Amino acid sequence: MVDAAKIPLYGVILAGGWGTRFWPLSRSQYPKQVLRLLGSESMLQTTVERLLPRIPTQRQAVVTNADQAELIHQELHRKGWDEVRIWIEPEGKNTAAAVGLAAIYLGEEAEEAVMAVFPADHFIQDQASLLQALDLGAHWAQAGYLVTFGIPPTRPETGYGYIKQGAPLDDQGKVYRTDRFIEKPPLDRATEFVAAGGYYWNSGIFVFRRDVLLAAMSRYLPDLYRELARLQVKENRPLLAEVYQNCPSISLDHGILEKAENVAVVPVEMGWNDVGTWEAVHELFPRDERANVLLGRVLDQGSQDCILLAQKRLVATIGLDRIIVVDTPDATLVCHRDRAQEVKNLVTELHRQQMVESVQHTTVERPWGRYTVMDEGPSFKVKRIVVDPGQKLSLQVHQLRAEHWVVVTGTAQVTIGQEIRLVASNQSVYIPQKTPHRLENPTVEPIQLIEVQTGAYLEEDDIQRLEDDYWHPDKD
Amino acid sequence: MVDAAKIPLYGVILAGGWGTRFWPLSRSQYPKQVLRLLGSESMLQTTVERLLPRIPTQRQAVVTNADQAELIHQELHRKGWDEVRIWIEPEGKNTAAAVGLAAIYLGEEAEEAVMAVFPADHFIQDQASLLQALDLGAHWAQAGYLVTFGIPPTRPETGYGYIKQGAPLDDQGKVYRTDRFIEKPPLDRATEFVAAGGYYWNSGIFVFRRDVLLAAMSRYLPDLYRELARLQVKENRPLLAEVYQNCPSISLDHGILEKAENVAVVPVEMGWNDVGTWEAVHELFPRDERANVLLGRVLDQGSQDCILLAQKRLVATIGLDRIIVVDTPDATLVCHRDRAQEVKNLVTELHRQQMVESVQHTTVERPWGRYTVMDEGPSFKVKRIVVDPGQKLSLQVHQLRAEHWVVVTGTAQVTIGQEIRLVASNQSVYIPQKTPHRLENPTVEPIQLIEVQTGAYLEEDDIQRLEDDYWHPDKD
Repeated sequence: MVDAAKIPLYGVILAGGWGTRFWPLSRSQYPKQVLRLLGSESMLQTTVERLLPRIPTQRQAVVTNADQAELIHQELHRKGWDEVRIWIEPEGKNTAAAVGLAAIYLGEEAEEAVMAVFPADHFIQDQASLLQALDLGAHWAQAGYLVTFGIPPTRPETGYGYIKQGAPLDDQGKVYRTDRFIEKPPLDRATEFVAAGGYYWNSGIFVFRRDVLLAAMSRYLPDLYRELARLQVKENRPLLAEVYQNCPSISLDHGILEKAENVAVVPVEMGWNDVGTWEAVHELFPRDERANVLLGRVLDQGSQDCILLAQKRLVATIGLDRIIVVDTPDATLVCHRDRAQEVKNLVTELHRQQMVESVQHTTVERPWGRYTVMDEGPSFKVKRIVVDPGQKLSLQVHQLRAEHWVVVTGTAQVTIGQEIRLVASNQSVYIPQKTPHRLENPTVEPIQLIEVQTGAYLEEDDIQRLEDDYWHPDKD
Repeated sequence: MVDAAKIPLYGVILAGGWGTRFWPLSRSQYPKQVLRLLGSESMLQTTVERLLPRIPTQRQAVVTNADQAELIHQELHRKGWDEVRIWIEPEGKNTAAAVGLAAIYLGEEAEEAVMAVFPADHFIQDQASLLQALDLGAHWAQAGYLVTFGIPPTRPETGYGYIKQGAPLDDQGKVYRTDRFIEKPPLDRATEFVAAGGYYWNSGIFVFRRDVLLAAMSRYLPDLYRELARLQVKENRPLLAEVYQNCPSISLDHGILEKAENVAVVPVEMGWNDVGTWEAVHELFPRDERANVLLGRVLDQGSQDCILLAQKRLVATIGLDRIIVVDTPDATLVCHRDRAQEVKNLVTELHRQQMVESVQHTTVERPWGRYTVMDEGPSFKVKRIVVDPGQKLSLQVHQLRAEHWVVVTGTAQVTIGQEIRLVASNQSVYIPQKTPHRLENPTVEPIQLIEVQTGAYLEEDDIQRLEDDYWHPDKD
């Protein structure tokens, strides 16, 4: 056996979805992978970090979409991981296309690169087991297999797909050929699987050589392969959007792994959880003596088996049984735990009704800090703005609104027209319509200011940026 | 029979409690009787109004406490009912003391006044039936009876006290002696009462002559009578607080009506509801096809028999059964309907923990308009202030904070030190610490402004009022 740890692995992190079932904490512009559900780091950051012992940031890439790219850049940048590549799909075409695109891009530097593919938003408690499985997976990938990671099931979960093992590939019971893939089964079948043994949850983690994957793709998904292969030319390369338009939308599992013959499964126990619905919170967090998970300012009287999460406001609960309450500054979800999957349908409905609560939070993260919309009326909007030390907003102009800034903490440097001045706390400035202005924090402490906008049109798109220091997806 | 409509009735409205079981809509400084649950008028206003055909405002009085007096004055003032008297108890001593105090006060103008006593926060759908019962009650009160109003029960409610009728007093079945009073019964007894007939819910509405009441009080509650009677002297009259200190705390029912022999009950069907808990909302509001009451911005999927109330934020619910959700700007209640009574205990706990959410809302009603606290931090507070047309705040000084005002709607007249100026929308002014200032709305449109306070101490008690146009309990 080759020393697997020496095979240069490439990490491909799929960060295309937004985790609708985690609404109202997740929003389309604040997806699940950037949530800090389980500590001070986002799930995306944790995903990158746990790979570092085998895959340095220079060999990691995130596949995402234009909506999320800036946020993902921020998450990586905050950790000093600017080398992690961000590949932007022009539209979502499921995992076969995303992984195929990554394989094409990697070909530019390593024909026979071994790629390990990870979802950006899963929880893995036991990093050592993951890395061990990764070494083993890389070995079999090198040998020409499409390797999947299977999680030995601990309960008859109906929310996951299963992989049935076939003949062993080694004599230690560490790797098997796959017999078949089973889509989310009904409860009775899932119960059979758990009892029978040799069935695993499909973790969505895969390891393979890029040339092996592309060979399988050309055979089982020739339409997709043909389109993506057009990107390999050096001259007159087609636009990615053009290529994607023609790509079929299909998962890697369904489109390739279920059909190919050189597929292997590495069973791995590593405290894995796909954090798929609010149910995961009940599994991953400490529970009180009545099996409730209480997070934030919650006052409960006699509830049991609940998930009660208060982001800011007081949440008071009495006598609930198996209820999820998630309270955010602009939206509250109250859902029976047996129906946590249906949050997805709810979000579809919010989208259909064009409710802003499905798109973003009242607090919006920006590269320079963040802002919170506190109040708005027909002719005004009030925001709290925080500018981190050393950061500055773009030099900008609004055609239709004036702004009053009252600094409440720290000292801001403000450009208004030709003038530059320092504005200390308890001072205010006025920025008339059509006047170029810029807000900067030249100090080492964050500044906070209250912005009162007045005017007949107060949307974010009335910003003309004259100068901007930050990375945007269309700027790179 | 005397023409009952000609007996000059006095109305005494008891408004001492705050309706804890309606938290988080009710707060100790925003009690249930001022809620506009059932339309554009508060329950207190509706209570005064429905009596007007028999009892003009000049003969109505509200018994309340110092905390609520200003708010109650506002409620009455807004309707132009400044003649309604407000009698302030120095502390709550239950209904016997409150009614006794009213009887003593009424003695100054009408020795044999017939008093009708009403809770401030009940719902009565059928005003005509109430007035008819009032006429009948006044007649029997005049004749020397302590008259109670009994509601024919429509279900075996365990949350109410019952009155059992005794011998008829007339030959039309319209009025009976009372046989006895029964405290909130267990379900099996309540079921028996409903089946048997001749039992009524105790509505808390009473009619009697003041001299008859005081005679009964001197017999059955001599300690209470002796204390209250001290208020009748003209000279060296004791302080009310001193008198109240010694008053026993007991209900009128328990202390007098259960014992006296001259007690009558008038059965009256009038669509009565004591609006005692959130359950009342399920009875009084329209329900959807799955028996849910939905109020405000609620998006539900498949819940049934729920009460779902969103005051501002979006509330999304999935698959709930018999759950109450009440979402207010600073607190959310989620409670099983079978445990709606326990909201009271919850509020006791909030009080014990000194949580502001039990005391007031983020929006506070003032005689001149209202303000909403939108945000606060260690050294700043942001409010939205609305000043109604023609109103002005007091001329005031803050020792420890400065204020920035940005007018966003309308035109304000602002006094700062010696200067008076008009501040139009999109203009701002700065009020330094220790500077007398005043905010006025001289126009016919409401004004809205954003106030940013800065300073190390930002509580409401840093206000020194130099001039003030409004009624306060300690000012009259």
